[in-house]
Amino acid sequence: VTGLEVVLPPGRLVRLGGGLRKDVAGLDLKRLLIGSEGILGVITAVYLKLLPAPEASRAIVGAYGTVEEGCAALEAVVAGGLVPATLDFIEGPALAAVASRFPGELPSGAAFLVLAEADGVAGEVGREAEEIAEALGETALAVDEKIDPGALWAWRDGVSGAVAAQLGAKVSEDVAVPLGALAALIEATHAIGRDHGLPSCSWGHGGDGNSHASFLLDPADSAARARAEAAVGDLFDTAIELGGSISGEHGVGYAKRDYLRASVGPESVVLQRQIKRLFDPKGLLNPGKAIPTDE
Amino acid sequence: VTGLEVVLPPGRLVRLGGGLRKDVAGLDLKRLLIGSEGILGVITAVYLKLLPAPEASRAIVGAYGTVEEGCAALEAVVAGGLVPATLDFIEGPALAAVASRFPGELPSGAAFLVLAEADGVAGEVGREAEEIAEALGETALAVDEKIDPGALWAWRDGVSGAVAAQLGAKVSEDVAVPLGALAALIEATHAIGRDHGLPSCSWGHGGDGNSHASFLLDPADSAARARAEAAVGDLFDTAIELGGSISGEHGVGYAKRDYLRASVGPESVVLQRQIKRLFDPKGLLNPGKAIPTDE
Repeated sequence: VTGLEVVLPPGRLVRLGGGLRKDVAGLDLKRLLIGSEGILGVITAVYLKLLPAPEASRAIVGAYGTVEEGCAALEAVVAGGLVPATLDFIEGPALAAVASRFPGELPSGAAFLVLAEADGVAGEVGREAEEIAEALGETALAVDEKIDPGALWAWRDGVSGAVAAQLGAKVSEDVAVPLGALAALIEATHAIGRDHGLPSCSWGHGGDGNSHASFLLDPADSAARARAEAAVGDLFDTAIELGGSISGEHGVGYAKRDYLRASVGPESVVLQRQIKRLFDPKGLLNPGKAIPTDE
Repeated sequence: VTGLEVVLPPGRLVRLGGGLRKDVAGLDLKRLLIGSEGILGVITAVYLKLLPAPEASRAIVGAYGTVEEGCAALEAVVAGGLVPATLDFIEGPALAAVASRFPGELPSGAAFLVLAEADGVAGEVGREAEEIAEALGETALAVDEKIDPGALWAWRDGVSGAVAAQLGAKVSEDVAVPLGALAALIEATHAIGRDHGLPSCSWGHGGDGNSHASFLLDPADSAARARAEAAVGDLFDTAIELGGSISGEHGVGYAKRDYLRASVGPESVVLQRQIKRLFDPKGLLNPGKAIPTDE
């Protein structure tokens, strides 16, 4: 994003940045607006710097017997200096929910998959795919380098719905931790599920330490829903304890508002609240969202 | 930059972000601090996400008879979806000042050079270099694909000093415009130089529309120095008229402070000043820099 056009209260149209590839004049207000969840202004136009679409892509899947081995493979890819276009994982009941439709062969005992994609120019993508496959292979039951990317990502897109269909509903939360703490987060998600009597599973953007941690429930079971809310609280506490964040990609909104202070620290929250007041002194924009109110 | 540790007035140590590859919890205060020129806080530690060093690199130089042709070549590279590691230019008296030491052959009539570098894995860099050479060739007098990258960048590093040595001093300013306006900026720099009786030239990061526009002068000539200051003011006005910025990479400081309002607009300056007061209500940090004082 190189620029934004934004309407600020009470109704001023302001451009921040623009169609420039480099611009460091002044404080970066544009970045303050990006991801601000509508609490500072209404974004009406965006200037983007685009990259060309990749010529070719190759998908690689590693299958693992344990969370530890799967997360070791994610670390092997990142530590090896490889930069895949995608580095996802899926484990436990989430994998079980979609295993029968997997567009390839799953080895016996597979409890954790790493899904990677190499992309780039046609002549080079094969080499990157081989390097990723090699890194994934160190702890794997099996590595599939020949899987069709289109079929794999279509299958991956079905995970969320298939998990929800197990009991009729799920509560999924997007948390992120340092990559070295991802295995601990995934194991802790299962421990939290057990504590609250809810089946649990995780999938997400493993190479970024980003997990969609999920608890399954019957939507008609209000006691289970209450337990799921408590489980989510424990999940956020765990992510923070592991040096992580309550949101890797989806923001704060209402649901995580009361956990923001623990995630970013009280000083940051005070500054955020003050900045909110600067931009929107009457509190008109997306009231109550993203920043906890004064205690 | 994934995180900062920063001391905020009057002496609070605050961490913004950290060792996380993804984190969107709350407003992005980290980005507000980056490039803030010390006016909001003192940065004491930085968390970085690193990319592996490229395995191999290739340099490509295109030589052009005119500014228009050289800028057309820059646009051909960017419009072709190529993403070179470097895409610089050097023209006019700046080129003349270092032409005799150029580590290759310059064709007769060369007034503008484009210096590009392809980097990446060993097997692929040749192909990218060829594609860049092809794009550069459309309007070129000559393209050199065999030049040694180390020798080229060592030569390039001498440009600023060699330009200053022509008359003993120079005033160089870092401005940026949309890529399609770079030729107009370079020609306007020469027109401004003529208006103020100062030799002028430009070089910089052409692929980003970023120019180091320079006016040459005798350091003992105080009248010339006053004319150079006026020329710089005209340069900033021109960059802004062309839809550009008064700073592509070096920030605002004192020198450009009074041009910030014209560059980013009065609304942005008001917000920046208010944010400065939030972070540093007593105005202790780098006073007088980066943001114009109230008028």
